[in-house]
Amino acid sequence: MQVAGEHYRSIWLDDATGDLRIIDQTLLPHRFEIRTIVDLDSAAEAIRTMRVRGAPLIGAMAAHGLALALEQDPSDESMTRAARELLATRPTAINLSWAVDRVVEAVTRLSPRERAEGARVEARAICDEDVESCSAIGDHGLVILEEIASSKSGAPVQILTHCNAGWLATVDWGTALAPIYKAHAAGLPVHVWVGETRPRNQGAGLTAFELREYGVPHTVIVDNAAGHLMQRGLVDCVMVGSDRTTAAGDVCNKIGTYPKALAAQANGVPFYVALPVSSIDWSIEDGLAEIPIEEREPREVRELTGLDDSGELATVSLFPESSPVANPAFDVTPARYVTALLTEHGRCEADRGSLAELRTRAAST
Amino acid sequence: MQVAGEHYRSIWLDDATGDLRIIDQTLLPHRFEIRTIVDLDSAAEAIRTMRVRGAPLIGAMAAHGLALALEQDPSDESMTRAARELLATRPTAINLSWAVDRVVEAVTRLSPRERAEGARVEARAICDEDVESCSAIGDHGLVILEEIASSKSGAPVQILTHCNAGWLATVDWGTALAPIYKAHAAGLPVHVWVGETRPRNQGAGLTAFELREYGVPHTVIVDNAAGHLMQRGLVDCVMVGSDRTTAAGDVCNKIGTYPKALAAQANGVPFYVALPVSSIDWSIEDGLAEIPIEEREPREVRELTGLDDSGELATVSLFPESSPVANPAFDVTPARYVTALLTEHGRCEADRGSLAELRTRAAST
Repeated sequence: MQVAGEHYRSIWLDDATGDLRIIDQTLLPHRFEIRTIVDLDSAAEAIRTMRVRGAPLIGAMAAHGLALALEQDPSDESMTRAARELLATRPTAINLSWAVDRVVEAVTRLSPRERAEGARVEARAICDEDVESCSAIGDHGLVILEEIASSKSGAPVQILTHCNAGWLATVDWGTALAPIYKAHAAGLPVHVWVGETRPRNQGAGLTAFELREYGVPHTVIVDNAAGHLMQRGLVDCVMVGSDRTTAAGDVCNKIGTYPKALAAQANGVPFYVALPVSSIDWSIEDGLAEIPIEEREPREVRELTGLDDSGELATVSLFPESSPVANPAFDVTPARYVTALLTEHGRCEADRGSLAELRTRAAST
Repeated sequence: MQVAGEHYRSIWLDDATGDLRIIDQTLLPHRFEIRTIVDLDSAAEAIRTMRVRGAPLIGAMAAHGLALALEQDPSDESMTRAARELLATRPTAINLSWAVDRVVEAVTRLSPRERAEGARVEARAICDEDVESCSAIGDHGLVILEEIASSKSGAPVQILTHCNAGWLATVDWGTALAPIYKAHAAGLPVHVWVGETRPRNQGAGLTAFELREYGVPHTVIVDNAAGHLMQRGLVDCVMVGSDRTTAAGDVCNKIGTYPKALAAQANGVPFYVALPVSSIDWSIEDGLAEIPIEEREPREVRELTGLDDSGELATVSLFPESSPVANPAFDVTPARYVTALLTEHGRCEADRGSLAELRTRAAST
């Protein structure tokens, strides 16, 4: 998508040098800095510290990280070690293991000297397919926004989103934001309520940044205000992403998604979850019992970084260390609160039968 | 209650000088600074900028502010002007107009030279009665916590609270926190989940400060995490305050209270609202239609203040001004989500009939 009028993906190989580049998302919206990822360690560090984040982008980064590891040492031991190190960076998103498994499968029968190149080809394919998937999610979601618009006599469709499920969370387009970009490009009036998404503020920092750069009207709110807006009839639909979806339709996403789903249901607001099929974990059904919830460090809650008076990045401490912190990074929204899932293969109800049918459809294309 | 082992009220007249003192709550938890309020303007400023906040404390401050205005000029015009200025500081809490009306009524028939002293006497009475009310709320709430404890075999009672409804929001004891202080003092094991309460972080800043100073075990969470904790069975009850409660039991409180009520109901967690009877607005029933919701300035969402590396207070900007902000300060929790109201006159169901009965009981004591 766009930054200052120029097109970017969130991860790419430099045309001239072949170097792997990312946008350092920990510095957004304050600084737009491009980083070069040179080896497995810097790839793992980028995932762990959330320079790259978002389930699809984590998968793409891990695939490229494996290619970098194989460049250094293409042995079986190196491949196993690298896969293990990448899988340990973040526990919740399923795309990480999906992408690592896919690259390992693609290169494992190659001779050692073909492996790095084989992994790079597979990583590029994962990236290109992600762009296509997200674009297709956008097309399917656009239909929903058009339906809502048809009863609004030209008033903007009001969409509430949480965290960042935009192009910065994927390779391009995004999941939950893709329908919004497609709608804006098609001239459909939309307005987005952006929840700031404490503790890491991916809403205020990343989603608002994306929307601003693409020219989409939006308003930032604290997470606490989402229920109030829905109660007052100011939200036409909720659109969020998912880090892992079960075969029964339970959705694991950024902490704070579940309360939005409760407020949506209480107020008759449709609640859509946009995701590529690669983020569905077909091996589990019960999201509450079976998805590990990452507990991140207290510092994320205790401290915040922004720009000080002189425009420099500064970190402030909000309360003393003598008050302990709990920081679960995700929550699970049970399937019954989900109006529909939006995938690259179309809309799918959040239940076992519909998901099984989607799986068959996805496998046959 | 306690700060560094010493007893404080949130507002008091200095024994030696008679000066009106407050704790500047905008500086907590970073600095503990006492301010002297010298006239009507500084009283109104203290309410508007939230140096004092919390419905009961706002009422107490307004009463004392009126006394200061009458000290300068005890005429009818001066009294009317001062009342109007104080009422305009914050629109949502009802105690403000309740306290102003009460002082005006008490002094209006006095001769001009008796008015300042009459107002001061009334303001002190309002403060002393608030302390008594909050202590009684604590006693009634303690019964509920003891009931929960009886089925927990010695494990701590897990209470989730939002914003600050502690002694800093009242004159002493607090409303939602009073039962917790009483329980802790009685040796009942309790643990409090403290929601940080964006945008102004009264949870992380004030509630955690209070609990720490009194030695009550607690953990700070982002507002987004409350639903997750309830879903996982980690919360025995929710206890919050109220800025205004209608005659039908609708509760207007800090933005983000309503989503906690939804999560409590979805997970079978009792949701208690603690409040003095003075914060009930008997003139209205429908909280959604009839309570004005204060919209505060965007800066509260865009900026945050904390301590920088060198321990100095510093304000950082979280996202650029090109992203607009909406900042509603309160939301309304419909009565059907409220398990019970806890008042100084005991527990009361959140419905018309029970509230009417409470009103009769309160008037007869």
